[in-house]
Amino acid sequence: MKKEKLLMTPGPTMIPAVVSMEEGMPMIHHRTPEYSEIFKKLNENLKNVFQTKNHVITFPSSGTGALEASVVNFFSPGDKVLCVSIGLFGDRVATIAKNFGLNVDKLSVTWGEAVEPKVVAEALEKEDYKGLFITHNETSTGATNDIESIGKITREKDVLILVDAISSLGGIDLQTDNWGIDVVVTGSQKALMAPPGLSFMSVSDKAWEAAEKSTMPKFYWNVLKARESLEKPEPQNPYTPAVSLIRAANKALELILEEGLEEVFNRHKKMANATQRAVEAMGLEFFTAPNARSYVITSIAMPDGIDGDKVRKIMSQKYGIMVAGGQKDLKGKIIRIGHMGYVHYGDIIQTITALERAMLEVGYPIEIGVGVKAALDVL
Amino acid sequence: MKKEKLLMTPGPTMIPAVVSMEEGMPMIHHRTPEYSEIFKKLNENLKNVFQTKNHVITFPSSGTGALEASVVNFFSPGDKVLCVSIGLFGDRVATIAKNFGLNVDKLSVTWGEAVEPKVVAEALEKEDYKGLFITHNETSTGATNDIESIGKITREKDVLILVDAISSLGGIDLQTDNWGIDVVVTGSQKALMAPPGLSFMSVSDKAWEAAEKSTMPKFYWNVLKARESLEKPEPQNPYTPAVSLIRAANKALELILEEGLEEVFNRHKKMANATQRAVEAMGLEFFTAPNARSYVITSIAMPDGIDGDKVRKIMSQKYGIMVAGGQKDLKGKIIRIGHMGYVHYGDIIQTITALERAMLEVGYPIEIGVGVKAALDVL
Repeated sequence: MKKEKLLMTPGPTMIPAVVSMEEGMPMIHHRTPEYSEIFKKLNENLKNVFQTKNHVITFPSSGTGALEASVVNFFSPGDKVLCVSIGLFGDRVATIAKNFGLNVDKLSVTWGEAVEPKVVAEALEKEDYKGLFITHNETSTGATNDIESIGKITREKDVLILVDAISSLGGIDLQTDNWGIDVVVTGSQKALMAPPGLSFMSVSDKAWEAAEKSTMPKFYWNVLKARESLEKPEPQNPYTPAVSLIRAANKALELILEEGLEEVFNRHKKMANATQRAVEAMGLEFFTAPNARSYVITSIAMPDGIDGDKVRKIMSQKYGIMVAGGQKDLKGKIIRIGHMGYVHYGDIIQTITALERAMLEVGYPIEIGVGVKAALDVL
Repeated sequence: MKKEKLLMTPGPTMIPAVVSMEEGMPMIHHRTPEYSEIFKKLNENLKNVFQTKNHVITFPSSGTGALEASVVNFFSPGDKVLCVSIGLFGDRVATIAKNFGLNVDKLSVTWGEAVEPKVVAEALEKEDYKGLFITHNETSTGATNDIESIGKITREKDVLILVDAISSLGGIDLQTDNWGIDVVVTGSQKALMAPPGLSFMSVSDKAWEAAEKSTMPKFYWNVLKARESLEKPEPQNPYTPAVSLIRAANKALELILEEGLEEVFNRHKKMANATQRAVEAMGLEFFTAPNARSYVITSIAMPDGIDGDKVRKIMSQKYGIMVAGGQKDLKGKIIRIGHMGYVHYGDIIQTITALERAMLEVGYPIEIGVGVKAALDVL
């Protein structure tokens, strides 16, 4: 039998059937009251999930598009910014910022760790930065930064804080307004359990002021244009929106809000906890430092001599479970289990079972069932 | 009964059910052989529909994104380019080019007309331009430019020709390679009868050379990065692709190629002919000049004292037919019937019927049935 693979990857994640059905509804035109009604609901739902009163802008793009949007909208060439990088995606923002002529200082942290807030505070003391870019959850390493504490630091200063929450939003608590975060970007295809192809960005009052002063060349990503369309009596988009994805994302956000944000965060914590207890019970090591371990993704260091890509292949081909591998220098050295979005206990159990079997097959001594038992104790 | 509206709009257009079903298939991960297989097919199908041997790059974005990509990839700030504008979308490209610091000369033609190739030839004689931007089919006015003749002119010169074929590709013949077109961009949601949210761009050898020299800041739209991913043994995308839209677009392209490109173009011609004969029979005037009338959209000038938006409202609310209105200065003055993509004779008949009734209701003297009869004579 050919069954769909379980997507235990850090995006794209599995899509609830009602979301897929909504995506496949007959096409409607985007300059109609019917579309505006859906878009209005999407915007309200986004505000609730972003935990903000600010506008949330929708782009027809992948998450990287929204990262570019966060670089080109609020700064001008030559502006000094600090990019905190704890992995691949932190590096990516820094690269984008450099490409567009920002004067970038990069604060890099060993992969697998989160940045210490006091290190950020010290860096902000030494220089006058216009912006601080930081990743909430670093998908490449499985580490989560303490945005609440860092928000407390930036709030005291004249610096914009821009958070890449692509793999965290809707999975890990991120209180945009309470924590004073100016710009938060995310993608549709991770914890938000919608198909890939949309990205979202919240913009604070301070960030809107910066947007008005920005001289960076832009057109597609222009948030001022997007705001103009959004504030029409019947809200619209400046260019043709991805109508079917917008319907799907709206449906997925409804499901999240029906379950309740707190419930959703608790579920993610529980799935992370179950996965991580199982990993320990199997005698495996984490790639991620203890105080930085994520609720949406678990990074496991492969024991010496074991190729993670081989483990993944067995998990995928024999047991139908897709997990992610290491990127760049980490290729083969780690495997990453995503537990974000539309994931419940049965998915975790299957994944741990497959991991146990695959590890045994590549020669790692393991008593089958110890991981599953540990996970079940949590679940 | 609440039935879906017929989308006789110049995009988004109606989606065949099999395309929607493909869109709603369970999510798959984008770094898998399974995805690469689909993406490979998409790329082959795109080449066939673009009538090119060159790579066709896919962006998760709306058509405007691909226009921006055509500006930022092949030029450097200060480069002199000629933007031929015959309407709103020609103006848009010129605006994007100016925003990104190109030295833009604009050759504007009265709305409703196509540009005369000899006028373009004269302009290219006077100045050394690095690029010529031109719209194939101008959606805002219903006029189609003679790209074949203009391609003959640019081929003799050291100038890139970049064609916005967003509303024409897959509806009106555009022989990318035969006509020597360097860059062609289009969107998924028009004649290609797929959902909105993807755009595509073909790139000639000459354009690749230009891309390698371009100093324009870019990241998301970088075609060199996209080519690198595309040329892997298992082709991929640099960033998360819009998986469900890619599946849908691939299915839609398959349908087009199964019907046969020539058949598809002939069907569009026939639908245009039927619509336009009906308009004449009803005694209405075209907004578009006789030699410029499009095969994918018909622009009708409203008689004095008749508000096109009122006509459209009746067509939509009473008869369930969505057509487009005039944009900017043309608001209320024209209506535009899209007949692109998944449109057959029954759709044209319904549309003409609704137009007849709506015109009568706003006080335009018409003998009900004359339009339908004229359309039927063609069909």
